[in-house]
Amino acid sequence: MLTSTELFARCPQRLAGHGSPRSLSATLRAIADSLDDSEMADIYGTGADLRAFEAEVADLLGMPDAVFMPSGTMAQQIALRLWCEHSGRPTVAMHPTSHLETAEHQGYQFLHNIRRLQFGAPEFMAGRLLTLADFVGLPVKPGAIILELPMRPLGGQLPAWEELVGISKWAREHQIPLHLDGARIWQCEHFYQRSLAQIAALFDSVYVSFYKDLGGLAGCMLLGNSAFIAESRVWQRRHGGNLYTQGPYVAAARQGMRQRLPEMSSWVLRAQEVASIFSATEGVIVNPDPPQVNLFQLLIKGDADTLMRRHHALATQSGIFLFSALSPAVIPGYAMTEIHIWENAMAFDVSQLAPFMAQLLAPTNA
Amino acid sequence: MLTSTELFARCPQRLAGHGSPRSLSATLRAIADSLDDSEMADIYGTGADLRAFEAEVADLLGMPDAVFMPSGTMAQQIALRLWCEHSGRPTVAMHPTSHLETAEHQGYQFLHNIRRLQFGAPEFMAGRLLTLADFVGLPVKPGAIILELPMRPLGGQLPAWEELVGISKWAREHQIPLHLDGARIWQCEHFYQRSLAQIAALFDSVYVSFYKDLGGLAGCMLLGNSAFIAESRVWQRRHGGNLYTQGPYVAAARQGMRQRLPEMSSWVLRAQEVASIFSATEGVIVNPDPPQVNLFQLLIKGDADTLMRRHHALATQSGIFLFSALSPAVIPGYAMTEIHIWENAMAFDVSQLAPFMAQLLAPTNA
Repeated sequence: MLTSTELFARCPQRLAGHGSPRSLSATLRAIADSLDDSEMADIYGTGADLRAFEAEVADLLGMPDAVFMPSGTMAQQIALRLWCEHSGRPTVAMHPTSHLETAEHQGYQFLHNIRRLQFGAPEFMAGRLLTLADFVGLPVKPGAIILELPMRPLGGQLPAWEELVGISKWAREHQIPLHLDGARIWQCEHFYQRSLAQIAALFDSVYVSFYKDLGGLAGCMLLGNSAFIAESRVWQRRHGGNLYTQGPYVAAARQGMRQRLPEMSSWVLRAQEVASIFSATEGVIVNPDPPQVNLFQLLIKGDADTLMRRHHALATQSGIFLFSALSPAVIPGYAMTEIHIWENAMAFDVSQLAPFMAQLLAPTNA
Repeated sequence: MLTSTELFARCPQRLAGHGSPRSLSATLRAIADSLDDSEMADIYGTGADLRAFEAEVADLLGMPDAVFMPSGTMAQQIALRLWCEHSGRPTVAMHPTSHLETAEHQGYQFLHNIRRLQFGAPEFMAGRLLTLADFVGLPVKPGAIILELPMRPLGGQLPAWEELVGISKWAREHQIPLHLDGARIWQCEHFYQRSLAQIAALFDSVYVSFYKDLGGLAGCMLLGNSAFIAESRVWQRRHGGNLYTQGPYVAAARQGMRQRLPEMSSWVLRAQEVASIFSATEGVIVNPDPPQVNLFQLLIKGDADTLMRRHHALATQSGIFLFSALSPAVIPGYAMTEIHIWENAMAFDVSQLAPFMAQLLAPTNA
């Protein structure tokens, strides 16, 4: 039996991913092809070409300065540490499902001695967005706040613009630094009908990622005022993130941004179109419905392993590939996957979706 | 006037460096050319090709396990943290000129709350190697020891084999974990006339680098027993070093190792040959003399700025390029540079060296 990756590579119709899986050599050649022959790799983060890209992204987000770093895990811990040192309070208010809490082995605690504040007593809010009332209700003033836009663990949900403005205003009134976990901020312009810079203006610092929607190799930027970024560079060195060169990551990030950022709103519209077909299928739940960005959760009635085997059999037979993995959903009796709408989804024949799902949910014997 | 980099690029005779400066696109294409078309980039550190390379390097060093990381700054802090947690003592014994103390903004203190123990009172030893007597004389038992082989800040000096064995034996008797800062360990086989594995066997953990002598892009490995490496991977994630992929670094590291490691002993011999010519020049000091590895310090009588200008004028005229920078040496009236003997030095016409130095030290008017 083929693995998910092998099957994905063979299916002509793919709902997921950017293009076909490529060998490392093909990836490197594609990056090289995007470069001017005069471009030199940065050395330890210095170099005119990297500085120009940092300035370009700072400009796009309307922030004064930016620094390229190898990972968001590093960038966000650094932002937290700086804001907590500036505010003199080693505490952070963030959603209990934040990447920092669930995917980084609590580096912010182990490396930076920062603690997360609990919302409410008992805290019970894993399935919903943070609101202004949550922050106002905190028993102590946090050293910093992190907000993720859109919130991946909630299927890419976004707070209403007025709610977001309210949180930003309250944080500024109380002199609490507000950091944006913008791993997927690129997706948000369509929902808010506002520019990236208008969204970023509500925050004191911003992290953006280049390898998810934008399809780069790895790496991110941290943005803020110049003193904040200068201090971040010292912490980048402490973290071991001041690499001899980040050249390949920088080049792939820039290429990805130029190629894919203009596509983002069309991906959001496609996500809503695809989701409406899923949503019309008996035994399927879309979260949120409609999607607010080009990411949503798909819940399918049934056992994850059984559905996965059936998906693979159908994909092998039809050449239509929807997802690589399913896990038990929070709703009993359902299995869950995330749908990210990227390049491949634009070429996907959506008329195939309803029949495929009908077969997946109620297979007929051939 | 040309910059050092531009001048270096134009000179046909170069004592320093690996080849000519290359654009980023040329670098990426060269890495791609070294790859089999089937090779896939690792995803978050997992993948058969990366595991095979980690196993290959572990085998070469005779260590049970290894993990590829983006930087030595990260790898060595992680090693320290683990050993200090295991030993229950958050202190380290390392040379006051260690990379961790002079080039990482004291990340080991700021991120890991580890402190360096002072040798002697007052501590006054910047110019010499650590000895067994230094460790025995420590007033308290350290949580871990770091030894750098060869010691770059001392011109690549190495302790005698018996001294090294004595330190290792003493550390084991006292159950103090001994970590090897092996950024340039590749250089040491010739001096010790022992294999890398025989040297590494004296240590509990080892860090090796791929972008200095081996000419990779960035990245390193941390080696140790399997439990230690498994725990290191958790800390790598905390540090923000578990990148979406390290593929380009891994590929460049492997290519560099295969291509350049076999050259290492010939580079050491060349360093000794070149150093003997420098050493015979009035007003020049070589440290150590003779060099023990393919790295040494060159001290030249005179003012750093004046000598640098004169070097550039001579290089422009003769096409012979020796060094990019000079700084005031610890010996008053001398300027200092490091000489790293790599690929270019093998093609360098050493008969040009004495006349060039004579001109540099006592220029005659043309």
